Amino acid sequence: MARKKIGKQTVKLQQPPSIVSTASTVGPKEGKGPLSHYFDIILTDDLYGENSWELAESKMLRETIRAAIQRADKNIVDIEYLLSGDLLNQLMAASFAARDLDIPFFGLYGACSTMSESLSLGAMLIDGGYANHVAAATSSHFSSAERQFRFPLELGNQRPLTAQWTVTGAGAAILAARGDGPYISHVTTGKVIDLGIKDANNMGAAMAPAAANTMVAHFEDTGFMPEDYDLIATGDLGAIGKEIAEEIVFDKGYNISKVFNDCGLLIFDNRVQDTHAGGSGCGCSASVFCGYIYKEMMEGRLNKVLLISTGALLSSTSALQGQSIPCIAHAVTITNILKH
Amino acid sequence: MARKKIGKQTVKLQQPPSIVSTASTVGPKEGKGPLSHYFDIILTDDLYGENSWELAESKMLRETIRAAIQRADKNIVDIEYLLSGDLLNQLMAASFAARDLDIPFFGLYGACSTMSESLSLGAMLIDGGYANHVAAATSSHFSSAERQFRFPLELGNQRPLTAQWTVTGAGAAILAARGDGPYISHVTTGKVIDLGIKDANNMGAAMAPAAANTMVAHFEDTGFMPEDYDLIATGDLGAIGKEIAEEIVFDKGYNISKVFNDCGLLIFDNRVQDTHAGGSGCGCSASVFCGYIYKEMMEGRLNKVLLISTGALLSSTSALQGQSIPCIAHAVTITNILKH
Repeated sequence: MARKKIGKQTVKLQQPPSIVSTASTVGPKEGKGPLSHYFDIILTDDLYGENSWELAESKMLRETIRAAIQRADKNIVDIEYLLSGDLLNQLMAASFAARDLDIPFFGLYGACSTMSESLSLGAMLIDGGYANHVAAATSSHFSSAERQFRFPLELGNQRPLTAQWTVTGAGAAILAARGDGPYISHVTTGKVIDLGIKDANNMGAAMAPAAANTMVAHFEDTGFMPEDYDLIATGDLGAIGKEIAEEIVFDKGYNISKVFNDCGLLIFDNRVQDTHAGGSGCGCSASVFCGYIYKEMMEGRLNKVLLISTGALLSSTSALQGQSIPCIAHAVTITNILKH
Repeated sequence: MARKKIGKQTVKLQQPPSIVSTASTVGPKEGKGPLSHYFDIILTDDLYGENSWELAESKMLRETIRAAIQRADKNIVDIEYLLSGDLLNQLMAASFAARDLDIPFFGLYGACSTMSESLSLGAMLIDGGYANHVAAATSSHFSSAERQFRFPLELGNQRPLTAQWTVTGAGAAILAARGDGPYISHVTTGKVIDLGIKDANNMGAAMAPAAANTMVAHFEDTGFMPEDYDLIATGDLGAIGKEIAEEIVFDKGYNISKVFNDCGLLIFDNRVQDTHAGGSGCGCSASVFCGYIYKEMMEGRLNKVLLISTGALLSSTSALQGQSIPCIAHAVTITNILKH
């Protein structure tokens, strides 16, 4: 077994990288939700002064990365890698953001799992000795996602109650070889799981088995138990997916109910904001982690968190061809306390 | 500076991973080209027994990965990470291939730069102590790419002479912590470069500055000179892009003319195969590297190669919105001889 590997899907970082800063931006609707005061920038207009939603999303991602770099008291030239991706075809948001940032760039696609995918690879690049500073970032935009994956917004289609609301938001984290934490101590990399769900309006149910699979692998590989965590936060399972995931994990012998929550449930008040099963999108776990979770960790109100961003890897082509939805979830342990 | 970093964009691997096996698959047209006898599998039908070109591409990628694993005398369970991506929206080929492979999966998007992006990250994961065996793989398919990026094939559109022909092909490489080479010794990660080209039928010209930028960074960071290499192979600049890249690099003080070639020029005989400026697609540098280059290295006819897969990060949305084409190129040094 490789020297930093523990179990089948997990690595333990030898010198856990520190998350030295984050920044988050959200749209107007997210800015009216329960986490409002945790976000750094709340847009008043979801076009953000641009001519298209796609360009607005790219600008949001770019400016969020810039803000995180600034907060880390660093300059663009100090950041050795940018690890980023988004939901848009060919990563239009990340590719165009990277164009304006002049940082060596690894484009990632993990759908809504991109925040933890970028944190995973970023942490390994630093602990591996390849970089001292890395930016991990992602975004999504309700309007660019709806028209790409579902219907033109102008149609005013009704959405079933299982549907989730793609978050307009971006999050960026700067990881560093040295810092005062919180630290990324473990990385559990997910496998693609597909139990046959074909409904693009029920992605929580599609993603739940992938989230559960990664969680169970994490517990088995590390020996951690749910009670070792102050919070286990999935990316965007929403109300339906969260219940399913909790049940699958329970059947495997782990009761996570006391510490389990979902970023898609935290970001909106579904009763009053009409977001049905909850938030989704890469920007969901990105903004909730970089806004709410990170700040709660900095205050010491959360000390050990398992972030499991969850991605539904469907495309409109695969959906039109009648295929089911392959899903993935990546987990990272983020902790204030390092025990060696 | 991080311990394995040399210069601004390059890392030197401390224990260079060995490429212990490769496999390549190409379509019928590529199988009639000049590299025909280097490819492992040549499809007789580009639908490969599937109902859509997208599913055919995914099957081609999956089976090529399986073949590479088998040649390395390994089983699926021995492969600790699969690093893969493709041109299709939301990586339909790679996501669906990963679903059937049960390997922890990092989805990448670098357009046609994906072969060297996956080799880069794969090599760093192994040298960093996170894995002993990693699969790096990518694919493209002429028919799935044409209809996604340009026009339905049924229209029979004429293609300008600057256009390139997307290769139907896949390549997979198994990297290992121990092996007899060829080894990945250096990784130079590209930045996104966009000099304003908007013509999706002239991607060679769009990508050339990115390829040149990465090449020059590589020479400056490592101190290598063009004559240190037996072959410097870009991914898919084609005839037009190759000439531009060579000129930009020459202006920066490096004469690469004696060792420079392009996978897009090697794979087709443009005079008789009507492929205009040459081949393109993730599968172009993937199949040429995993077929031709790797086998020539194993025979000792090539001993040190710089592979620079090149990606045009456009989407049909960005093109329709009048945006220019952001491009990227990642370089890896692959060598038979290790000097420590």
